[in-house]
Amino acid sequence: MKTYFECFPCFVKQALRASRLFTDDQKVIKQIIDEVGMLFPDISLDKTPPEIGEFIYGKIREISGVEDPYENLKNQNTDEALQLVAFCKNIIAKSIDPLFTAIKMAIAGNVIDLAIHHDFDIPSEIKTVIHKEFAINDYELFRSQLERSDTILYIGDNAGESVFDRLLIEQFAHKKVIYAVRGTPVINDVVEKDAKRAGIDKFAEIISSGSATPGIILSKCSEEFKEIFNKADMIISKGQGNYEGISEESREIFFLLKVKCEVLARDIGVPINSLVLMRLS
Amino acid sequence: MKTYFECFPCFVKQALRASRLFTDDQKVIKQIIDEVGMLFPDISLDKTPPEIGEFIYGKIREISGVEDPYENLKNQNTDEALQLVAFCKNIIAKSIDPLFTAIKMAIAGNVIDLAIHHDFDIPSEIKTVIHKEFAINDYELFRSQLERSDTILYIGDNAGESVFDRLLIEQFAHKKVIYAVRGTPVINDVVEKDAKRAGIDKFAEIISSGSATPGIILSKCSEEFKEIFNKADMIISKGQGNYEGISEESREIFFLLKVKCEVLARDIGVPINSLVLMRLS
Repeated sequence: MKTYFECFPCFVKQALRASRLFTDDQKVIKQIIDEVGMLFPDISLDKTPPEIGEFIYGKIREISGVEDPYENLKNQNTDEALQLVAFCKNIIAKSIDPLFTAIKMAIAGNVIDLAIHHDFDIPSEIKTVIHKEFAINDYELFRSQLERSDTILYIGDNAGESVFDRLLIEQFAHKKVIYAVRGTPVINDVVEKDAKRAGIDKFAEIISSGSATPGIILSKCSEEFKEIFNKADMIISKGQGNYEGISEESREIFFLLKVKCEVLARDIGVPINSLVLMRLS
Repeated sequence: MKTYFECFPCFVKQALRASRLFTDDQKVIKQIIDEVGMLFPDISLDKTPPEIGEFIYGKIREISGVEDPYENLKNQNTDEALQLVAFCKNIIAKSIDPLFTAIKMAIAGNVIDLAIHHDFDIPSEIKTVIHKEFAINDYELFRSQLERSDTILYIGDNAGESVFDRLLIEQFAHKKVIYAVRGTPVINDVVEKDAKRAGIDKFAEIISSGSATPGIILSKCSEEFKEIFNKADMIISKGQGNYEGISEESREIFFLLKVKCEVLARDIGVPINSLVLMRLS
């Protein structure tokens, strides 16, 4: 997805929100906001939003002097999500179509997103999502592609959310699943240690994208990641950031996401807050 | 009022909205957004938001090459408001307290604000405002100060809105009213020709602030304006922009406004969308 004009105020908002999550030093916050503003002339509209995210959150990492400023928050989100595993598994097991329910559960987990919201209530989001219809629903294509596939690349999004990804991956019995995480901590996106804390390593091989963008941008990823991206039988991409980065790649990808802003809503052509299970190819 | 961190994304939003009102040239819009971003380091938090507005809208005036890029829109807003004069006068005349009703009507006119919204429905706003309680109501202080005053400085805000200011000024029988307008066109703020189109000149003397800030900043105003500001028996300030510019001046001012953003809501200590008739001194 390209960058829209409406993304510019949002970059500043994200910088402010992310700054406040690790500091209340007004000078530091101002410095980060200023750096984002000064970057504007370098942001061409054909860049994707995660490229700008990489800069913003990289700047925060640099100024904070901490490799992973959101580590505690991420651990907290993951631990809260882990407490819901038994509850969620019970809903999945009792449902008419456990695969479809697990997909919805994975999207419910997408509510854990510090870049957009930082007030979220996972149990109530689960209830809402389970009873909500998809605005775009390519489930039949998803199911038949899954049946035909041996190797699945599942691109993770946020820490905490990855607990719900695990519940979906548990449905892919006898498949080889590769779970991609960010190469460097970037806001609350999932990195290897977060994925392990969520228990993903019991059900999938974890690989790094080799990049610090909060959304996959193929040209910035490692050769190893690119090879898996090109060769996997099926790709599942979670969340808005990954959509923004790879929605225009010319291979089949299944996107699972909740539409969290007006710009994405317009890009996809659905209302804000829609649930989307969409195949692009 | 000082500038808050939340104002920074809003400056970018305002630049985008104001740009789109006069052009659909993507390069021009990008240039304006870039210039606003690059200005961030020069915006200290002790500046008031209208100072930044002066820069943004000055840049638009410069890039558009047009002295008053919103002239047509302003004329349209004024003409629409003029069509409601008989309707409004009837409501005022039939009310128990015509002065109080005219104050509410003047605040209803404050909905005409291209810097914040550009979708507004004046007749429905009038109905809403007339039936809504003030969140801060210094009406008794307002009325008694009015009775004691001979010379009233009434600081206008937006074009179109000034038609409703006129209805209030018509209530100030036998007073000398001076209606202040912006010295230079700045978005849809009222300048002399807009005030005349609204018929203000029949009921008040029109003076220029001598400045291009979309909200009075005393240090930027002409000596003539400053003298009137200091000597007037009573000052009535309309709208959010003027509040942002002069809320910390050390003289008695009556502010009439609708609270249009979260930052102002926090600064005043009332909910967003509140109606305020407040004396500061």
